[in-house]
Amino acid sequence: MNQINRAAIVGGSHGNELIGVYLVKKFQKYPHLIKRANFETLSLLGNPKAIAARRRYIDRDLNRCFTENNLTTDITSSYEELRAKEIQQILRPQNQEFVDVIIDLHTTTANMGLCIILGNMHPLLLGLAANISAINPLVKVYSHQQPRNSGFLRSLSELGFAIEVGAVAQGVLSAELFKQTEQLVYAVLDYFEECNQGKIPPTHNTLTLYQSIGAVDYPRNEDGEIQAMIHPQLQFRDYEPLHPGEPIFLTFEDEEIFYEGESTVYPIFINEAAYYEKGIAMYLSQKEVIHTI
Amino acid sequence: MNQINRAAIVGGSHGNELIGVYLVKKFQKYPHLIKRANFETLSLLGNPKAIAARRRYIDRDLNRCFTENNLTTDITSSYEELRAKEIQQILRPQNQEFVDVIIDLHTTTANMGLCIILGNMHPLLLGLAANISAINPLVKVYSHQQPRNSGFLRSLSELGFAIEVGAVAQGVLSAELFKQTEQLVYAVLDYFEECNQGKIPPTHNTLTLYQSIGAVDYPRNEDGEIQAMIHPQLQFRDYEPLHPGEPIFLTFEDEEIFYEGESTVYPIFINEAAYYEKGIAMYLSQKEVIHTI
Repeated sequence: MNQINRAAIVGGSHGNELIGVYLVKKFQKYPHLIKRANFETLSLLGNPKAIAARRRYIDRDLNRCFTENNLTTDITSSYEELRAKEIQQILRPQNQEFVDVIIDLHTTTANMGLCIILGNMHPLLLGLAANISAINPLVKVYSHQQPRNSGFLRSLSELGFAIEVGAVAQGVLSAELFKQTEQLVYAVLDYFEECNQGKIPPTHNTLTLYQSIGAVDYPRNEDGEIQAMIHPQLQFRDYEPLHPGEPIFLTFEDEEIFYEGESTVYPIFINEAAYYEKGIAMYLSQKEVIHTI
Repeated sequence: MNQINRAAIVGGSHGNELIGVYLVKKFQKYPHLIKRANFETLSLLGNPKAIAARRRYIDRDLNRCFTENNLTTDITSSYEELRAKEIQQILRPQNQEFVDVIIDLHTTTANMGLCIILGNMHPLLLGLAANISAINPLVKVYSHQQPRNSGFLRSLSELGFAIEVGAVAQGVLSAELFKQTEQLVYAVLDYFEECNQGKIPPTHNTLTLYQSIGAVDYPRNEDGEIQAMIHPQLQFRDYEPLHPGEPIFLTFEDEEIFYEGESTVYPIFINEAAYYEKGIAMYLSQKEVIHTI
């Protein structure tokens, strides 16, 4: 069993995702809230300049800057590349394991509720996800396999994962989601505390997992300009089944565009504001029930 | 009776309010949609650089730059001040009346539905508002008296007004609200067409008006940092009565803050993302029924 010695909570990797920003400010003001009997927890604001500017980022997306290339080069051309190195020095000094767990707090304009995003299938993370989602049925678990070099902040630790909550607009605080996210963070810390104590948490041997199978872009013209919007029938329907032949987009001329896949999928991150520029209208996932024990 | 010779539709005065941006692009592609028998309509993107950057503005809020001071000075220190002068030259060349009507399209993260915002009580605007809100009960009318020098784009014309739709996140297209806004624009143009034809539109002699009586800021500490969020019970409750003693904010420590006014008010623009930096958590209004004929 892994022993957790240090956990890190990061908020505001994206400066306009305010729930993480204000949760971390709260944890820094009241550190006892994230203190647990048998490990330390540090908390950190990811992108202070972007937070001050109320923007996702200044030069480029910080949460894509944690690549081997960027972290090892001496040349840094952007604020976020520099900031990624600083964060690495805090969370993984001299490129050595220092924090055992990273919880990266995000919000989304998609209706993802309370979502744990796993970048790998480490048994401890699967156990955590099974436990937390059994306690709180509002919690969903999304798996998006990420290689070490994918650039995500959470990839600095093997036990790194994101908490993604929504729907909430960029630059806005939702009190309801703030409270729910706070409770979810405490539940995660409690789980690790119990693991360290050797108490095996109550057995939950099944876990419903939304497994990413790829992204879908908006229909675009030759200039890259989008030609359609998320269909009203799909808007806010994250995690719900999308069957072949059902509408997914509506053009500006009011024509429906249908999903042409061959099997039922479960869209995630539907209409996330920050993904328009990334060429992502939604991710598609498969819903799987897996056995964790 | 005023004769309307030219109307202007502006979208994207704020670059991350996408419904106006894509409606104007549609109107520019299909100009017949906004053509009417007895007047011309031109359409215009307000802030192209901010639209490209997916931000509200580059240097400062364009929709506060249409002040006498800025429009008459030779010194321009920001992109938006320059752009305001360009827009004035298009809509009001040599500071002479050229377009008779300005429709400025906006979106908000507040739950304002389809809202017509009037900056003055011109009888033709009141008649328009009464007519449109009678035809479509989803349409609300908010009056925020603005002096000529207040800096709003719509103040370039006596018959200038805004259409404000929400709730929609910044940087996001809502297909449902896109369609509803489009139909609202057509209804406005149809109304002016009928006015020009001397057809007095169907009589609607009462109009429900939400009259602004001031703004409320978030509780803040000495450093200007916000200390509380919009209370969950108030979130998305625009236009609904707020009675003395009801909760309006929730601190990060989960303490409720109550409305201490002496009379019932109707909050508007609750939790608008762009207003955090302006020191506005919401506007308060009085609900009035006025007679327009």
